[in-house]
Amino acid sequence: MTEPHPIERRNPEGDGGFLFVCEHASNHFPARFGQLGLSEAERSAHIAWDPGALGVARGLSDLLQSPLAAAGVSRLIYDCNRPPDQASAMPARSETYDIPGNQAITSDERLARTEAVYLPFQAALTGQLARMLARGQRPILVTVHSFTPLWFGQKREVEFGIIHDQDARFAEALESAAAEDGRLRVALNQPYSGADGVAHTLRLHATPHGLPHAMLEFRNDLIASPSAEAEMAEWLAPLLRQAAARLL
Amino acid sequence: MTEPHPIERRNPEGDGGFLFVCEHASNHFPARFGQLGLSEAERSAHIAWDPGALGVARGLSDLLQSPLAAAGVSRLIYDCNRPPDQASAMPARSETYDIPGNQAITSDERLARTEAVYLPFQAALTGQLARMLARGQRPILVTVHSFTPLWFGQKREVEFGIIHDQDARFAEALESAAAEDGRLRVALNQPYSGADGVAHTLRLHATPHGLPHAMLEFRNDLIASPSAEAEMAEWLAPLLRQAAARLL
Repeated sequence: MTEPHPIERRNPEGDGGFLFVCEHASNHFPARFGQLGLSEAERSAHIAWDPGALGVARGLSDLLQSPLAAAGVSRLIYDCNRPPDQASAMPARSETYDIPGNQAITSDERLARTEAVYLPFQAALTGQLARMLARGQRPILVTVHSFTPLWFGQKREVEFGIIHDQDARFAEALESAAAEDGRLRVALNQPYSGADGVAHTLRLHATPHGLPHAMLEFRNDLIASPSAEAEMAEWLAPLLRQAAARLL
Repeated sequence: MTEPHPIERRNPEGDGGFLFVCEHASNHFPARFGQLGLSEAERSAHIAWDPGALGVARGLSDLLQSPLAAAGVSRLIYDCNRPPDQASAMPARSETYDIPGNQAITSDERLARTEAVYLPFQAALTGQLARMLARGQRPILVTVHSFTPLWFGQKREVEFGIIHDQDARFAEALESAAAEDGRLRVALNQPYSGADGVAHTLRLHATPHGLPHAMLEFRNDLIASPSAEAEMAEWLAPLLRQAAARLL
């Protein structure tokens, strides 16, 4: 009945100290939910996914030998970084785009998308983390995102944003390490903050367990090719290690 | 491979405003994990489960037409109100009892119990709550427990304890309603509090969604028969409704 929406799991046995998550990894539109009335260009745009984020996350997972869980469905079908009661989980509008197929979602349709996309993703994350905790690992939870350089026509100057939920320590340590490095314009809680409701994964999986955490946001023009994604991961991996060491 | 550990789900479609959870409902010891070297008397004692709690929770679920999820395995195998990294999830000692089969748990065994007991229970709770949220319900999360009248030989005077995680509002409203009623000696955060690490379910499932919540603790000599359980549920149901109304 439910079309499979493969969740990518990489290095599930890795014990390098991190757990990476990529909620907006894919712009896949499963046939059962249709294409929401969007053109191919719209389905490839930043509204449908975070271009480049999965490549960076895969690189970090490999370089730091730590697990990655990545969603396999467009966030316009269901945004796995939002709870099922938020309108933004199945947004009617994203930036300047209306999403025709999300204008009038029935209760049954909300439930069907929640069951088909959100719940399997949550089960994957809960399972991965519980297995790590049972083995005595206390990973730092890092979610990997990208954002569009132009937002409502305005250029965003920040290149690398670091967002946190209740515990700012790891985010601050990483911001310091990245600022000292100097390669990117880095900022805490930019281009938005946890107060904007974007920290759902951190709030569900890091905060209740007291795990250090951060949500990383890369301006997507900086990770617009496989080689740029790989370079970003290579730049960031040692900074993540430094930030982790500063917590000890 | 995995022996089934049925999780009781009652009134899953109920929309009476509550979601009830009973983590310590059962003293079932699945064959694959053995009986941990405990006698039948020990396996029936309060260390293995919360006697009476399931009966009260079932009554509340029916009276308030709200869902209940109840674990099907003894908390000495896995305590579903504890995360997998806490020793108390598979305790080596409980009150005055040593638990022989929990003295030296291997990493593989911790993982096996986590996968067989904790993860299916978490999946049931996450699924139940996500479906309610997707339908536009914002339930009050109430977990139902019992405690032993004698603890290390000391009599506990409190009869009904109400515990909360970060948001005390519903617990305080219920404490007021119960104190005005006057039938039981009621106290907030007795016989222990969320600071003692007993609020795992609330912390995972209520706090991240901003849901009102409480953990209820009944002294188990007050719910020691099916009729006493039913009476307790009948006494409590209107108080829960009153407390919910006070939040509006």
